[in-house]
Amino acid sequence: MTVTSSRHQFSSQLFSPKTFSKFPLIILAMSSPSSAAETTTLWAELRHAEPSDVPFIRRMIYQMAEFERLTHIFSATDSSLLSILFPSPPLPPFFSLTPLVLYLSFTSPPVRSSQTLSITQFSIPFPVADPDESDFASPLGDGRCIAGFVICFPNYSTFLPKMGLYIEHIFVREPWRRMGLGKFMLSLVAKKAAELGMGRVDWCVLDWNVNAIEFYKGMGAEVLQEWRICRLTGPSLEKYKDD
Amino acid sequence: MTVTSSRHQFSSQLFSPKTFSKFPLIILAMSSPSSAAETTTLWAELRHAEPSDVPFIRRMIYQMAEFERLTHIFSATDSSLLSILFPSPPLPPFFSLTPLVLYLSFTSPPVRSSQTLSITQFSIPFPVADPDESDFASPLGDGRCIAGFVICFPNYSTFLPKMGLYIEHIFVREPWRRMGLGKFMLSLVAKKAAELGMGRVDWCVLDWNVNAIEFYKGMGAEVLQEWRICRLTGPSLEKYKDD
Repeated sequence: MTVTSSRHQFSSQLFSPKTFSKFPLIILAMSSPSSAAETTTLWAELRHAEPSDVPFIRRMIYQMAEFERLTHIFSATDSSLLSILFPSPPLPPFFSLTPLVLYLSFTSPPVRSSQTLSITQFSIPFPVADPDESDFASPLGDGRCIAGFVICFPNYSTFLPKMGLYIEHIFVREPWRRMGLGKFMLSLVAKKAAELGMGRVDWCVLDWNVNAIEFYKGMGAEVLQEWRICRLTGPSLEKYKDD
Repeated sequence: MTVTSSRHQFSSQLFSPKTFSKFPLIILAMSSPSSAAETTTLWAELRHAEPSDVPFIRRMIYQMAEFERLTHIFSATDSSLLSILFPSPPLPPFFSLTPLVLYLSFTSPPVRSSQTLSITQFSIPFPVADPDESDFASPLGDGRCIAGFVICFPNYSTFLPKMGLYIEHIFVREPWRRMGLGKFMLSLVAKKAAELGMGRVDWCVLDWNVNAIEFYKGMGAEVLQEWRICRLTGPSLEKYKDD
């Protein structure tokens, strides 16, 4: 799980509430920067992912792999990701691998659907420079953009003994950080776990990612200093096949 | 996941191949110690757990909690453990929470069943002093004893993207350590993961448990030094319920 430090990259592509959803996305490149002191209303929806979200999730996983210096093990394709995230027959959300996506809109709140976990209003500075904006335009054609995702699956504490949730990834794209969106997503996953009677929510963080660690502690999380992850993978795992 | 250091406790209860399965278990208390230089054949079976194994698994989880100094969070009962380990309807092994138990016998190998992962022969020193022996006599009435267990469940690497296995516990009771039984169990879980086309097997270890760390490295595992586990649990998790 990664919350990366906020290093805003300003480019010629600037989101402003006026252009965000009214014009074709290419127009955004022509917008002029305006004062960063202004704020505007942003509507954020966290919803269960659809198969059409998979290419966006794959791109964001790759961005995470870059930050975590793990691109050498990244081998997900849209097709391989689709088959693992959307098995047939479908499995119940939160009791199996569960992908959630974060949609943003500057217009009036989107219509709540059965896939929606929450729609919440944020006050954010604008314009927001999002160099990858055209790659993350909503596939629904509703002028929104995809700015983050969560992937979680159930785990088990046999001490309690209760099910829990393990968050494999929680990610907000760089231009949209420090606005409360990571907290919004993590809070909703924690809320869901608590409502389902689960005993804990776990995830991992790199020990040098001090911004993320402070963020998680502020959310009430304990960082377990004594435990280390052990892993058998690649050839070290394959050799057991012939044992 | 815990492999504890080997500290043999010798008591008046001594297993020897002659007494192990031929006499009622109480007789073992009357056996005399014999030379520790002798060896004998031990048959170890790793099999999928049955509901009748649950009380034994619960006692072993408690022994782990003692070693990990976590008895304050231990609240499993036979009934709560039964409901989480054996849900109704049953779920497919290794694609859901999967308990395995280790049965030992000094007599000829037990009959292989559909629940058996492997039956393997070990040469071990004897007699073995097992002070908890009467608490771990096989519920099948076949004179065997239960000496360890594994609990694992599926996890997911979205970088690969592949399923994997997470080992929540792997445990051998103290008198039966340093005989190769931990390696036997971990190898079988790794073999199963590899055969199922999974991408990795993960587990956790306490950083002060140097014996376990060396053991895991010897098995080919990488110990990830940079990652820390974050956890929301108890009141810190419950507060999100009302958000």
